[in-house]
Amino acid sequence: MSDPLAIIGGAGAGLGQSLVRAFAQNGYTPIGLNRSVPDGAAGTTHAVDLSDPDQISQTVSDLIQTHGAPNLVVHNAAKLVIAGFAETTAAHFEATWRAMVLSAANLACNALPAMVKGGGGTFIVTGATASLRGGRNFAAFASAKAGLRALTQSLAREYGPQGIHVVHVVLDGIVDTDASRALHSMAPERMKKPADIARTYLALADQHRSTWTHEMDLGPMGEAF
Amino acid sequence: MSDPLAIIGGAGAGLGQSLVRAFAQNGYTPIGLNRSVPDGAAGTTHAVDLSDPDQISQTVSDLIQTHGAPNLVVHNAAKLVIAGFAETTAAHFEATWRAMVLSAANLACNALPAMVKGGGGTFIVTGATASLRGGRNFAAFASAKAGLRALTQSLAREYGPQGIHVVHVVLDGIVDTDASRALHSMAPERMKKPADIARTYLALADQHRSTWTHEMDLGPMGEAF
Amino acid sequence: MSDPLAIIGGAGAGLGQSLVRAFAQNGYTPIGLNRSVPDGAAGTTHAVDLSDPDQISQTVSDLIQTHGAPNLVVHNAAKLVIAGFAETTAAHFEATWRAMVLSAANLACNALPAMVKGGGGTFIVTGATASLRGGRNFAAFASAKAGLRALTQSLAREYGPQGIHVVHVVLDGIVDTDASRALHSMAPERMKKPADIARTYLALADQHRSTWTHEMDLGPMGEAF
Amino acid sequence: MSDPLAIIGGAGAGLGQSLVRAFAQNGYTPIGLNRSVPDGAAGTTHAVDLSDPDQISQTVSDLIQTHGAPNLVVHNAAKLVIAGFAETTAAHFEATWRAMVLSAANLACNALPAMVKGGGGTFIVTGATASLRGGRNFAAFASAKAGLRALTQSLAREYGPQGIHVVHVVLDGIVDTDASRALHSMAPERMKKPADIARTYLALADQHRSTWTHEMDLGPMGEAF
Repeated sequence: MSDPLAIIGGAGAGLGQSLVRAFAQNGYTPIGLNRSVPDGAAGTTHAVDLSDPDQISQTVSDLIQTHGAPNLVVHNAAKLVIAGFAETTAAHFEATWRAMVLSAANLACNALPAMVKGGGGTFIVTGATASLRGGRNFAAFASAKAGLRALTQSLAREYGPQGIHVVHVVLDGIVDTDASRALHSMAPERMKKPADIARTYLALADQHRSTWTHEMDLGPMGEAF
Repeated sequence: MSDPLAIIGGAGAGLGQSLVRAFAQNGYTPIGLNRSVPDGAAGTTHAVDLSDPDQISQTVSDLIQTHGAPNLVVHNAAKLVIAGFAETTAAHFEATWRAMVLSAANLACNALPAMVKGGGGTFIVTGATASLRGGRNFAAFASAKAGLRALTQSLAREYGPQGIHVVHVVLDGIVDTDASRALHSMAPERMKKPADIARTYLALADQHRSTWTHEMDLGPMGEAF
Repeated sequence: MSDPLAIIGGAGAGLGQSLVRAFAQNGYTPIGLNRSVPDGAAGTTHAVDLSDPDQISQTVSDLIQTHGAPNLVVHNAAKLVIAGFAETTAAHFEATWRAMVLSAANLACNALPAMVKGGGGTFIVTGATASLRGGRNFAAFASAKAGLRALTQSLAREYGPQGIHVVHVVLDGIVDTDASRALHSMAPERMKKPADIARTYLALADQHRSTWTHEMDLGPMGEAF
Repeated sequence: MSDPLAIIGGAGAGLGQSLVRAFAQNGYTPIGLNRSVPDGAAGTTHAVDLSDPDQISQTVSDLIQTHGAPNLVVHNAAKLVIAGFAETTAAHFEATWRAMVLSAANLACNALPAMVKGGGGTFIVTGATASLRGGRNFAAFASAKAGLRALTQSLAREYGPQGIHVVHVVLDGIVDTDASRALHSMAPERMKKPADIARTYLALADQHRSTWTHEMDLGPMGEAF
């Protein structure tokens, strides 16, 4: 029997590709979905617009036909907008909503019914501090992340009783990627390591049905809740 | 000097029109904005698509030219979708997001700068229990209401220090309107009275700068928090 | 018929006495209960240890015999401890717990049954930012305030259906009193005015059964939620 | 070098003893502290009153002298009171507060400074659904659990920057123990397995400093957040 399928929606150069690698090392057949395929990811990552219902429907349906229902699905797509409200346009609001809420709904509606038929599985959504509260310069990003969290909670309540473990993970602080090292002056040891996050996602996928986590935070030392 | 302007975005036959009436009785010049003008509301309510940035920009700009900057703005527009996730389409997600998040962003970006220049004012957003958490059959509605709450929090943090009182009111339970009496078998005395909600909104607009409320719930007896 | 009784548990020189005065001006017979009677409060304020079940039982029972069941009860007693955890002793934890949790339980268990028999009423609990989350230097204070909030929520769920409106008010920031002016360098206009808080408490007591608030914050401009 | 010390405060017959066993199997020297030593636990579990500052100070100090600073400390002590508020006495409130808040403060103030000196470690607190909100029949239990959570948050903010990972775990639903099987008619497969909880606690103790969890829930399938 082949390894179980793991789909990573939002598989760019940082955390997404780390999840692809970590899942491969832990017995999954991981397939990343991303607007563009990052360098070195050919074969494991497919170019697809997650916010387009038709593209996602076709892609996920193809994957299921080839690999069977996924055991693990991660929604990790995000679009960051940091701007004062006066500089935030309707287009910004729409872009963040498409990248986070609509893409997650598309992924869920194509993957979850197959997972239910397949006997269960885990659906992990990557959140952020902005998922829990708005803030100055985060009107667009926070409204989309909060909307994504509420969608995730709705899925948990609806699909939990059907055997699907739906989890929302709140990532506080900065993930250590090439992009964030270029952007932030923060000491790298204070940045969350993608491999550590991947380890937590794998542990969530391993939780027994009697002991599921539905929400947890992950943040560097000193950023206490 | 003329009465201060109050804009009610989302001024349909239920709570919205009650706010128009209550604000008129309390010294405001209330103008409702609604997709369609409900019976009997001509003159005080304008037909406009709140989710259309251009229409809102033109309408609010005209109102400000005539009446001066508003003292009070209420976002009360909502689109209710109750459906299992399998029956919830991308169009449902988009419709709730447009009706709640985008419309509030449009209203805020046209009203708030004028209010700041005008020396202050109150911006009240009508939320719901779904603003705080998702639930079965509420994936689309809750994701939009939660996004609206995060937008409101972002506005509060950005415009509070500029003298604008931004409040999120969580309405639990059913508002007593003709529509909800037709829809629900609930005893009317357990439904929230629009006039009582209006009284609370007026009290929020009256709060002193040292004593602002940023979030409160309003629900019938027995629906404790 | 005589004015309805209002009991203010925790009626020291600041907010407590403002509540006594405001309630008197609004048609209540207010009686403050406090460890010691502040200057000028004789007659309206009784010396009693709120954390002593026997004293509170006797005092509230006497008040009810004289005035009838209270219409309005406020728990406003607090003991502030600000100290690093290493300097916080078991005695600090006990003192904050007695002053806030136990005193509220004592007040509630003597007042609520009479209020139910009397046909209803309002029970308001004064919280703080620390009621919602712990913080550095606030281990003792936050643990007691959070415990008080959970007690209040329990009372709301148990007594709401019996007609008692139980509310938790989160006071953010500093109340403008002689003591806090001496303690803080903050500009007085950024401090919450006791009279404004009292106005909000009176408005809560006036809410119709279909439109109760169970939790709200009150904080100065710029301290957005 | 000997195995690192793990202290389990609250090591009764259910989850506490499972933690002792699981920690022993994973390279720790586990010592349980409990009011009484459960059958079969002699040697690994000491009888001590966690709510007595002097007893805890002596016991923890002895343990540190023998084993060095603990790497892992769990607060798992609880006292369940389920009663309507009218039947809940001051003694109930005190008993729950002693068993949960005071005992955790005692454990923390004796263990944390040694852990800081020892270079770090993990402090895990077992919470419950009642830690997040009060409820009918849970006035005493919820007020203590909420107080414990606020204490834990305060410790996280104060000791996180000093290298101590402080976590609050919200256990939803019933832990599968002999006692709970006797008490509840719930199907055992819907009860959380102590060994699964222990596995999560071990994973928390293994988290890298860049990727700490400060709060998570653990509950059976179908009890979504």
